[in-house]
Amino acid sequence: MKELVSRCRSYRRFDAAIPFSEGELRELAALARCVPSAGNRQPLKYVLSCTPAGNQRIFETLAWAGYLADWPGPGPEERPTGYVVVCVDTAIAQSADVDVGIAAQTILLAATAAGRGGCMFGAVRREELAARLGLPAALSIALVIALGTPVERVVLEDLPADRSIRYYRTPDATHHVPKRAVEELIHSVYAG
Amino acid sequence: MKELVSRCRSYRRFDAAIPFSEGELRELAALARCVPSAGNRQPLKYVLSCTPAGNQRIFETLAWAGYLADWPGPGPEERPTGYVVVCVDTAIAQSADVDVGIAAQTILLAATAAGRGGCMFGAVRREELAARLGLPAALSIALVIALGTPVERVVLEDLPADRSIRYYRTPDATHHVPKRAVEELIHSVYAG
Repeated sequence: MKELVSRCRSYRRFDAAIPFSEGELRELAALARCVPSAGNRQPLKYVLSCTPAGNQRIFETLAWAGYLADWPGPGPEERPTGYVVVCVDTAIAQSADVDVGIAAQTILLAATAAGRGGCMFGAVRREELAARLGLPAALSIALVIALGTPVERVVLEDLPADRSIRYYRTPDATHHVPKRAVEELIHSVYAG
Repeated sequence: MKELVSRCRSYRRFDAAIPFSEGELRELAALARCVPSAGNRQPLKYVLSCTPAGNQRIFETLAWAGYLADWPGPGPEERPTGYVVVCVDTAIAQSADVDVGIAAQTILLAATAAGRGGCMFGAVRREELAARLGLPAALSIALVIALGTPVERVVLEDLPADRSIRYYRTPDATHHVPKRAVEELIHSVYAG
């Protein structure tokens, strides 16, 4: 699990020549069915895509890597080959962000375990995407998970001296992600 | 992963004689450090507990199993032996529920992989718990994860005819959790 969580990074560049299959996407949705949900209400609904046309429809509504000002997103050879659009069915719950995080991380971990990888997008032009996907008004887009076979190297490192949490890319195309030290995350401990 | 996600249920009864160690709790926090975070801001902070006094302080602020009207929660022999209180540092982000779900599910999966189990609590008397833990005003309690070695059997099943999502317990002490069919969760598919 430790190894899996370490390997489960946010990847933004993929091998566009390696397709994602409908079966893989349905497996991920089947896993998401089994996760905890507040009050067991299970308000999440999914749109799955793995065709060039469906993928393009979604891709164009995503904002890529806010901190990489010089990079507009992956070119045609490095685009995701599968997508899971996570929606909240507002007929069941008005909002469900904790449920969304639970399901999205489960999907990303399972994709990673299967040799794939992906990235969660909160920065989505939601209205446009809902129209492009023909979603009913009751479905509210929470998050988009882009999936594929990653072709980039992502490394975690300690915060720099100026304590910036902005990720960055070095000329060797490695993506660096500064993470706070675990001591900083633990506020207090009641132990023996 | 499929097997792990299936095994990762919400357990509410534990063997109180099997302690949780500080090392285990710190491992879980170390894992949570590595998960995705919106804009990589990493606003979550954790309070860890594995002592009888610390655990009691937290236990008393939790509402157990809303749908089991006759069950006030586990007796002394079946209480959790460890806790992770997940807080949002509001000096970093005002709210971060997707981050909370990502971290909480990662912790629950890792605990499950290690032969433990637990339950996420959104129904927490937050103000009382914040006072009991002496939290600074900037830390807002999002969720409590109770942990231990489970002693109950939890099964997933399809929704009943009346489509109720209320979990229930049968006389053999099995906890039943109705889950929507995966076909119901998939709104649409763009596939070949």
